[in-house]
Amino acid sequence: MAGRELKVALLGFGTVGSSVARILCDLRPQGLALTHVYNRNVARKKADWVPADVVWTERIEDVLRSDVDIVVELVGGLDPAGEWVKAALEAGKSVVTANKKLIAFHGIELEKLARAKGGFLQYGAAVAGGIPVIPGVQQGLAGDRITRIEGILNGTCNFILSKMEGGAEFADVLKEAQGLGYAEANPTEDVDGYDARAKLVILSRLALRADLDPEEIPCRSITEVAAIDFEYARELNCTIRQIARAELRGGEVLASVGPMLVPKDSPLAWSRGTENTVLVSGQYGGDVVFSGHGAGGHPTAVAVVSDLVNIAHGSRKVEMLSRKTAIGGEFLLRHSIRFVVSDKPGIIAEIALALAEQKINIDAIFQKPGYGSQNLPFVVTVEPCVASALRRALNRIEKMDCLLEKPFDLQILE
Amino acid sequence: MAGRELKVALLGFGTVGSSVARILCDLRPQGLALTHVYNRNVARKKADWVPADVVWTERIEDVLRSDVDIVVELVGGLDPAGEWVKAALEAGKSVVTANKKLIAFHGIELEKLARAKGGFLQYGAAVAGGIPVIPGVQQGLAGDRITRIEGILNGTCNFILSKMEGGAEFADVLKEAQGLGYAEANPTEDVDGYDARAKLVILSRLALRADLDPEEIPCRSITEVAAIDFEYARELNCTIRQIARAELRGGEVLASVGPMLVPKDSPLAWSRGTENTVLVSGQYGGDVVFSGHGAGGHPTAVAVVSDLVNIAHGSRKVEMLSRKTAIGGEFLLRHSIRFVVSDKPGIIAEIALALAEQKINIDAIFQKPGYGSQNLPFVVTVEPCVASALRRALNRIEKMDCLLEKPFDLQILE
Repeated sequence: MAGRELKVALLGFGTVGSSVARILCDLRPQGLALTHVYNRNVARKKADWVPADVVWTERIEDVLRSDVDIVVELVGGLDPAGEWVKAALEAGKSVVTANKKLIAFHGIELEKLARAKGGFLQYGAAVAGGIPVIPGVQQGLAGDRITRIEGILNGTCNFILSKMEGGAEFADVLKEAQGLGYAEANPTEDVDGYDARAKLVILSRLALRADLDPEEIPCRSITEVAAIDFEYARELNCTIRQIARAELRGGEVLASVGPMLVPKDSPLAWSRGTENTVLVSGQYGGDVVFSGHGAGGHPTAVAVVSDLVNIAHGSRKVEMLSRKTAIGGEFLLRHSIRFVVSDKPGIIAEIALALAEQKINIDAIFQKPGYGSQNLPFVVTVEPCVASALRRALNRIEKMDCLLEKPFDLQILE
Repeated sequence: MAGRELKVALLGFGTVGSSVARILCDLRPQGLALTHVYNRNVARKKADWVPADVVWTERIEDVLRSDVDIVVELVGGLDPAGEWVKAALEAGKSVVTANKKLIAFHGIELEKLARAKGGFLQYGAAVAGGIPVIPGVQQGLAGDRITRIEGILNGTCNFILSKMEGGAEFADVLKEAQGLGYAEANPTEDVDGYDARAKLVILSRLALRADLDPEEIPCRSITEVAAIDFEYARELNCTIRQIARAELRGGEVLASVGPMLVPKDSPLAWSRGTENTVLVSGQYGGDVVFSGHGAGGHPTAVAVVSDLVNIAHGSRKVEMLSRKTAIGGEFLLRHSIRFVVSDKPGIIAEIALALAEQKINIDAIFQKPGYGSQNLPFVVTVEPCVASALRRALNRIEKMDCLLEKPFDLQILE
């Protein structure tokens, strides 16, 4: 492909799309020319700093049937974005996309299609925005056997949880995040973990070479995390973050997404605001940390333009075979459980008994001063156990009539 | 090159060389076969876990004149390693090297030679060992305009300085590092900054696209840092690290290597032991942090094998033009200066006067309790100034007869 300029079409001219156009116009990377912009109601999108010969269109056929070389898909979601990506690849074009959901659910078949038709499919922006985790893993760690990934992959959750560290409640911070444009009106994809899950599936494919079914990965929402949980976290020298993790264990993979207690000396505790952090552990190279801006127009656009530059330079990625792998078993982890009770003698004994029945050992009990006995919060930490055993114990504990709230448990990252 | 197996020769079977062989034998990456090992007095190196058909030799011609496809140079230094790399490239072979000095001083001509002869030259292990900074920058950030690099690029210095944080003196920790094999008998390359400088030159070429003359970059040794400097650093909420930095400023580059005060909330303050950390700042993507094991047999070997895998997969790197760039001007930075005096009235006045003559403003004065007036250490911090102006002020201050030691100044990283 080297030699002539490659024609680039943008599908979607929102925050990321206009940032991609801005970088292409400002930096003028060699071998690339923006020629088409597709958007619904495109007239309101036209920008005067885009070269006059760029075609603005609201008919997708104008792009798919054109002689464009690379289609940049920034529409998001499975439908119609998936059909458009497929049509572009069928036509022998290359595709650059930031669409984590599409790559998580259909990446393997789309890569196969790209190979068959002679195009490239690149998706560096689909995971951790402007942080080069994908080339870092695909190129830079190709010589290791990666056994574990742990990451903060969702900027919205990180914004909310790092704000809650200061004492605010979830609902208030969510509203603030929505006001700032960091969270959607319907925040489910972010706070319930589905966005991070899609990214974890992509990283598992590239790093662990394991194709996971996204819907098999247990996700837990951060909506139940309360301000008081950060107070108890501090007692444990921890903070709380949404952690997406996957680990090879024999021929299977353990994986989960959800809020966890993270020790303050872990690199995963350092991300502030919308930052992302990914920790990759290799059998030979040990731990490698990547950190930076995981979202936002400009950082995501850097990942997109980097993919475009790689295609223009004829840079091929290392393609490793991945194989269908089942989610097997559960992480063995310490847990912290928050109770709120109307105090009376025998509560700890009953909780301890229910835990002991499941062979779970109590590690410590914390109680913050300043609460009356009629509405008393306290926290119990337990030695490593699987979440399902703890759930069985909690099912029994939840029947105790002294409980004023459902107990809330958090896993503790080692 | 895809299709048949590529034959790999190792030049050097020390810590890194044997780790490379180990990974090649254990993971058996597709498309690569170890065929030759060169080392002086090779008989004592032979390992029984290496396949029996590998040729062990102490004659370099046995490799250079063979049908080997890729030569892995792990000998280090400019001579004879440089001649061997050149001969291999001349013969149309590809070369993978961890030799930062060779790439810093002769990388551009060697890359030109590789291109002309159709081979690849890869050196992912030359900077930050097992941390994929080079592919991260070359592939993953190709779409940004990187304006600044700040890094902890030398594991030996980081080991020494992070140990000194606990109260130990330089000479004692150096001895410990030598005992552990982290420091050479002659530690000059590491502690005086030449190792980090070579890596900074390579990173500047790839990230800033600026070819710097290594010998133009000012280097300052960490040997003068004393345990007490960490006590004053704590007062400033800082620690001390060897920092290599380069920054685009107009058409020129500011660059330096040496000990600096680093705020505790900077990712550069988090590296412990022999870890490396690199912070790359882009005009569009903001700050990206890479961190992990910068040295050691296995992590460095991961970078080498990753380069081999990339060559085997026909993965081409993005080649950006760099251009000869001068080191221009100096960083404008806050400084901290440690004095040890026999106390008498008027000392601060005289120091303040000498600083004021150079238009340098005093920011604060710290004095730790517990010292007698005959041997009194204290620290003066000054507002941003260039090092040369401070040097002129210190030249005058050094003439004061109350001074018991030469004042010691450290720049403060913003």
